Amino acid sequence: MTLGKVVGTVVATRKDEKLIGNRLMIVQEVDLDNELIRQYTVAVDSVGAGIGEIVLTAGGSSARYTEATKGKPVDAAIVAIVDTVEINGEIIYQK
Amino acid sequence: MTLGKVVGTVVATRKDEKLIGNRLMIVQEVDLDNELIRQYTVAVDSVGAGIGEIVLTAGGSSARYTEATKGKPVDAAIVAIVDTVEINGEIIYQK
Amino acid sequence: MTLGKVVGTVVATRKDEKLIGNRLMIVQEVDLDNELIRQYTVAVDSVGAGIGEIVLTAGGSSARYTEATKGKPVDAAIVAIVDTVEINGEIIYQK
Amino acid sequence: MTLGKVVGTVVATRKDEKLIGNRLMIVQEVDLDNELIRQYTVAVDSVGAGIGEIVLTAGGSSARYTEATKGKPVDAAIVAIVDTVEINGEIIYQK
Amino acid sequence: MTLGKVVGTVVATRKDEKLIGNRLMIVQEVDLDNELIRQYTVAVDSVGAGIGEIVLTAGGSSARYTEATKGKPVDAAIVAIVDTVEINGEIIYQK
Repeated sequence: MTLGKVVGTVVATRKDEKLIGNRLMIVQEVDLDNELIRQYTVAVDSVGAGIGEIVLTAGGSSARYTEATKGKPVDAAIVAIVDTVEINGEIIYQK
Repeated sequence: MTLGKVVGTVVATRKDEKLIGNRLMIVQEVDLDNELIRQYTVAVDSVGAGIGEIVLTAGGSSARYTEATKGKPVDAAIVAIVDTVEINGEIIYQK
Repeated sequence: MTLGKVVGTVVATRKDEKLIGNRLMIVQEVDLDNELIRQYTVAVDSVGAGIGEIVLTAGGSSARYTEATKGKPVDAAIVAIVDTVEINGEIIYQK
Repeated sequence: MTLGKVVGTVVATRKDEKLIGNRLMIVQEVDLDNELIRQYTVAVDSVGAGIGEIVLTAGGSSARYTEATKGKPVDAAIVAIVDTVEINGEIIYQK
Repeated sequence: MTLGKVVGTVVATRKDEKLIGNRLMIVQEVDLDNELIRQYTVAVDSVGAGIGEIVLTAGGSSARYTEATKGKPVDAAIVAIVDTVEINGEIIYQK
């Protein structure tokens, strides 16, 4: 999974029927210093994440293994809201 | 999913039988400033997208989860036409 | 899918049994100016593509959804021979 | 699979139900000189790996083929704790 | 699939049970000039490849479609030992 920050949202009226009711969040990846990097993905939220939160995103076929995304044409899903990231014994992020 | 702009089309007479009837669109990715970047994909359109529109593309096995792509050798599908992209409280794209 | 040019072939006597009878083609990717870039893949041909042709390649699990590749350990398949690529109203490639 | 070093952990209270009980480890990739590189992933531990260990991580759908990750929205799993890495007849890492 | 050279091996005692009996080979990718590049993967050998050989590696879910890897948490498998690589009518590698 990747660590990222929820930085925005996408609204789309015309879309695959299975996506109706899903929230489409823009998640920008962070590196191991918790700095935003260039890469991002548009992920379906399955845990009630909000703007500004650090989240875990699952990609590929695994993104379809949440209740919100099962059987849908979705290749990224937010699967956790992060409380703490600890690296080399140091807490680099705390909610 | 990725955000991209539909910039072109691909025509192919000789192709896997399952692709007959599918529209093959060239989708160039955009970054979080809505600028076109180098990466692109050729995606099957499942929502009636047109040239110039900003769309959401699903990749990998998830691309086969639309009505247009089920069971086909397709690794990218346009799954939504984007109305609005909002980042950090600012609308960076509106259809 | 990606656009690429068939630039070569791979011959292998010792291989997974399921690959017997498949043609292994080297497909070098092209960018949106139809210029060759560094990336390439070795793909199973499912449409009778020849050296020099511009083709569409499907990757990942989708590569196993052609008649030639079903159930095989193959992560890239040529699924179409391209006739025309049109970008922003301009034909950048014609067979 | 990729070679990486377990450098940290992620704690998340609010997450997909299926992730309850899984340990989320930050695995930073190493190159063929056993040097840490920029890329990392957050992987579910399936073998009891600890901070500082060099591990093998499986990604994509294959990450769901361990006992710890079956049917879960998980795209990376630690599948082995590495004892030895030998390259060109030289041992570049030993536990 | 990718072309790569078998440059090493990984030994791991503590691993997912399903990996017992599999040989874990380090395969470093080569470019279209047959030069080693930075990217590598750790792949399960399914064809009896040895150090120094040029091989074809299948990645992702397709890596699980060999007899050696079926149902295992494996995202890369060596599926062929390459005899010849021919590019633009020139043989750039011969075993």
